[in-house]
Order: sequence, then C-alpha cells, then structure tokens
Amino acid sequence: MVSTPLRQFRISAPCSTANIGPGFDVLGISLSLYLTLDVKVGGDNGQDFEMTYSGEGAKDVPLTPEHNLITKAALYVLSANGIQQLPRPLNIHVDNPIPLGRGLGSSGAAVVAGILLGNALGQLNLSRSRLLDYCLMIERHPDNVAAALMGGFVASYLRELSPEDMEGIPESESLLEVTPSKVSPQPPLGIGHYLRLSWNKDIKCIAIVPQFKVATAEARAVLPTSYQRQDVIFNFQRLAVLTTALGQSPPDADLIYNAMQDKIHQPYRKTLIPGLPEVLSSITPEKYDGLLGICLSGAGPTILALATKNFDTIATAAQAVFKEHGIQESFYKVLDVVEDGSTCVEL
Amino acid sequence: MVSTPLRQFRISAPCSTANIGPGFDVLGISLSLYLTLDVKVGGDNGQDFEMTYSGEGAKDVPLTPEHNLITKAALYVLSANGIQQLPRPLNIHVDNPIPLGRGLGSSGAAVVAGILLGNALGQLNLSRSRLLDYCLMIERHPDNVAAALMGGFVASYLRELSPEDMEGIPESESLLEVTPSKVSPQPPLGIGHYLRLSWNKDIKCIAIVPQFKVATAEARAVLPTSYQRQDVIFNFQRLAVLTTALGQSPPDADLIYNAMQDKIHQPYRKTLIPGLPEVLSSITPEKYDGLLGICLSGAGPTILALATKNFDTIATAAQAVFKEHGIQESFYKVLDVVEDGSTCVEL
Repeated sequence: MVSTPLRQFRISAPCSTANIGPGFDVLGISLSLYLTLDVKVGGDNGQDFEMTYSGEGAKDVPLTPEHNLITKAALYVLSANGIQQLPRPLNIHVDNPIPLGRGLGSSGAAVVAGILLGNALGQLNLSRSRLLDYCLMIERHPDNVAAALMGGFVASYLRELSPEDMEGIPESESLLEVTPSKVSPQPPLGIGHYLRLSWNKDIKCIAIVPQFKVATAEARAVLPTSYQRQDVIFNFQRLAVLTTALGQSPPDADLIYNAMQDKIHQPYRKTLIPGLPEVLSSITPEKYDGLLGICLSGAGPTILALATKNFDTIATAAQAVFKEHGIQESFYKVLDVVEDGSTCVEL
Repeated sequence: MVSTPLRQFRISAPCSTANIGPGFDVLGISLSLYLTLDVKVGGDNGQDFEMTYSGEGAKDVPLTPEHNLITKAALYVLSANGIQQLPRPLNIHVDNPIPLGRGLGSSGAAVVAGILLGNALGQLNLSRSRLLDYCLMIERHPDNVAAALMGGFVASYLRELSPEDMEGIPESESLLEVTPSKVSPQPPLGIGHYLRLSWNKDIKCIAIVPQFKVATAEARAVLPTSYQRQDVIFNFQRLAVLTTALGQSPPDADLIYNAMQDKIHQPYRKTLIPGLPEVLSSITPEKYDGLLGICLSGAGPTILALATKNFDTIATAAQAVFKEHGIQESFYKVLDVVEDGSTCVEL
C-alpha cells in the first residue's frame, strides 16, 4: 500500500443570521462564532476514518461519513469531480459552538465547511463562487450559505435555472446520497449571485437564544403559499431601505427600526415561538438607547437585536419577556459581523 | 384695497422613473427633465388669476385653480394651514416637457410642484420632510414623489398609520376638494421615510417613450391582488442586490441585468403594452455593450434602459422592436440622474 504525505488543515465557517426582518430568503450576515474542522489526511495511519466532535450537538450528531452533513457535503463535491470516496487515512475533529436548530445557520456552516472539506481533500482548487454553486445544490436558500462562505452582510439571489441546466439534477436534497457506483452531477455554473452590502462596524448583533429548537422545515410549513399585494409592497419598501441604512454612519435608529418590520414570515411564526410578538414589540429604540432594530434570526427561535450599545440590558430585557411567556431558559451572545467568511488554512 | 409687494419665484420639479424592475412601489430615480412654474404674486395687478401653460399637455390640461393638479395641491397645503384661497393677484406660467401618462412621473412632478407652490404662496417655511408628508396625502405611492422632491436614487416607505393618525383624513384623494368653508386636515407627521441610495454617475437613463398613454389606474387594475411566495422571494432577492449594485464602480452588467428582473408587475402589464416582453428580452448586455438593464418605467408604456454607452444604438433597437409589434411612433431621451430634487428659488 502506498502512503500519501500527511496534510493537515483547519477549516472554519462562521454562523450566520438570515432574513433580518423584511429580507426573507435574501439577506444574511456572518457572525463571530465559528464551526471549525481540524483535518489530518494521508501519512502512515493506515486506512482509518476517525471523526470526533465537541460542542453543540455532541450527543446527537452522527459521525459516519454517509450520515454526517459535513462529510456528506464533502462526498458530493468529490463525487461530482470523479472521486467516489473520502481519502484515507482521514482524521477530522469538529468543534461546533453554534447552537443547532435555533436560526443561527448551523446547517449552513456545516454545508459550507463540508464543501470546503471536499475541495481541500480532492485538491480541486475550485473558486469561491464555484464553491457557492456547490453549497446551493445542497441548501437551496442562499441567505445563510452565501453569508457563511463570503463573509459580511450579503444579499444574494438564485439564477433561474433552465430545464437543460437541471438535466440529471434532482429537485430535492437527494444529491447528498452519494453512492460509490455513481458520479454525482456537477452544479450548473453561476447558480447563485451575491453582493456584499456595506455594514457600519459600530453595529453589533445580539443573539438571544431560547433553549428549544425550531426545525427549519416546520418554520417554513407555517408560512402561507401566497401573499396579499399590500404585504408584499410593505416588505419591498423596507427591504430597499434596510440594505443601505445599515451601512450609514451614524446609523439612524428610527429609520432602521421601522425598516426591519416584516409581514412575510415573522407574523406566521409566532405560533412556534411563545412570546415572539411581545419581544419584538416591547424592545424599542425609545426604551433602549442604542437599539436599532429587532427581528427573528433566520427561522428562529433566536431573536436578533442590532445595537450600538447597552447590549446586556437589551438582551436581558428580551430574556425577561420570554420568561413571562413561559420560556424559562435562554442565553445570549453579543457577536461581531465578520469580514472574512469561511477559510481553509493548510497547517 | 391693500396691495401686497410683488414676489416672483421659480419652482422646478424633475420627472422620475419608478419601480426599476423588482422595486415595485419603492424605488424612484429623479431625471433631468423639469416641470417649471414661473410665479408672480402680489403687486398692483388687481385681483386677477392667470395661469398659462406650454409643453406637453398644453391642449388638455385644465387651468382653473380648482381643476389643475398643481393648484389643487397648492390649495390643499394652504387650506391645511388656515388659508382658504390662493392669494391674488397671481400669475403662473407652467412649462412642462414631461410626457403625460407615459410612466415618467408627470403627475408626481405636478404634485411636488404644487406642494412647493402652496408652501411658497403661504410663506409657510415647511421642512422638506414635512413637504413629503403633504405630497403623500395626495399621491399615496411614495416612489415618484419622494424621488422628485428629494432628488437622486431613492428608496422610500410609508409609515403604517394608526386610526388616530387618520382621524378626519379620507382614504381617497378627496382631500384635494378644498372648499372655502372648510379647513383641510394636516397630514400626520412623518408619513413617508426615504433614503438616498448611492448611484454611479457613469450610468445614464434612456427613456424610450411610445406614443400612447397608459393610465396608472388601469396599469394597477391588471395586477393581481395576491402573489405566490416564490415570485415574492424572486423580487426580494433581486431588489436587495439592485439597491447597492447601481452604486458600484465599475457597474457589473451581469449582476445588474439579472437583478432588474421582476415577477410582480411587468409580466401582468404586457397586455397593455404591445411588444413589452420582446423589448425586455431582446435588449441584453450580450448584444449591446454598455447596457446594464432594461425595465418598464413606472406603470409604462415608457421603457427605461440603464447604460454607460451606446445610448442611441440601444434606444433605436428598442424602437425597432416596438415597430415590429405595431407601435409605429416613439421617441427617446437620454437623461441624467439629478442630485438636487425640486427647488423653489425667489427671483
């Protein structure tokens, strides 16, 4: 048996918040809490595969290549490029501080980390925008993955794919079922377009995280399939203002707070998150100096508050409202917007 | 009879384009074609009212105070501030180069000019943002009036008004029926919020104007009252990108062209404008170097093309497609985005 040289690298992918009020399925922000993979491949360790995991989800996350989301994403990239298995020996340690199922982009970070892992293991040297295409074959909503991959405050859209583009590509997530006998299809070129929006660095993101999960699928199932025109226009008007307002210096609290109102997803998700309307309506710039806006983070249940000061006061006020509505357990983190996005560094 | 000192002033209000593809009822751009009013009030000319008019609409526009849109708007501002009649003697000459009923904001410019006229005649010294409130009591869609009043590339939203705010204020445009015996209600404070978006000055706006009118009411009547979620998200994703992409240097034609696609209003308006789908689909950046995007201007029938060069080539190509679809007569103008918005200068 030929042993390949030992390579070691570290992959890191930030958590992210999405929607930001009116920007349903379009706006994402990468935040300073990172999923990291420490990877050793090759060398003289035989043919072993070892995957270890610390942090959030350590008890529940499967650690076999064909079941773990990170390795499944890596296997897809490899398979689409003619490599049907993970190289061996392979040792991966995952450290994940991102709460699972709370609306902080834990699965988006896992997908991005897995795509970077496949790119690194196969030494494919795919461009960053090509990596986004791969991410979007797995997670079809661009907001979290575009932010986690590219960094910063990001707006993104999916190109409309023609029937020819989609030839051989299933609509669902079944792509991830990579089988050794079958090469997975490559993504169409340029599925996702994205743009970095400007962000005022004085603004921090407070994530108030209730101790229960909301499945993204469930959070989408409560949404209507159609909307009244006036509700659509309500969001258009706020979204257009918000994308520029968060980059202005100094930030205009009245403008931003009103521009973060939403009629497309938050009103329908109150049934899943006790106290949601009360948290959103009771934490205002009039009561809390420095507060700019407050909304659901992704599909929830995490609350995202944007502020320039009084972070702890704002967070504990939101926790208190949750308590009044029966959510006894919650925690919060004050996070920065990260510029770099995801990285893969050879050690 | 006491004669008041003669005052002379000139009011100018630019035309504007609205929607810009995905930004239905939210985005507006003020353009370099101006409605102007030359006004003389007071002095020794007796009690006469004289209004003269040159330019577009000269044959049709009514010139009596209670029927002309400009003087009706002025009367509303005056009435809401306790002045029930236009001061006399009053001489107004209107010059209007803005085509009527073509989607270039002719009525928005008239409303803005009329509100500035009322402010000047009554010497009310209302702030610019207060003037916007008055405009929005007459034209409830903020896109054209916010752009015409403030200048530049503008995103705007209407504040949600409470029942208390709306007390005594009719929902319709009946406000304009000012009667000498009754004081009109003042607008609620801060109805409209707006934000100037950044604009790359290399981008010019080509307005291709077919020689027929589309009434805004008719253009709204063809729209559905509800939309599928995927169409709403399609516009969200493009709108969020577009608001920043048009300020970047150099402009990214592929990004902008795709971000100017729309599923909320343009597809429904093709029945009103022969050749619309063909014009929009056949004028592309691949065929015309310098083209960035193409869309309906406001409610149409004018086509707006954004470009950095080849303005005449692009315009004549659009005219040729209209001809193939039976629109024999059209003209075009290459316009700049204006920074200043509307002005009132005492002479």
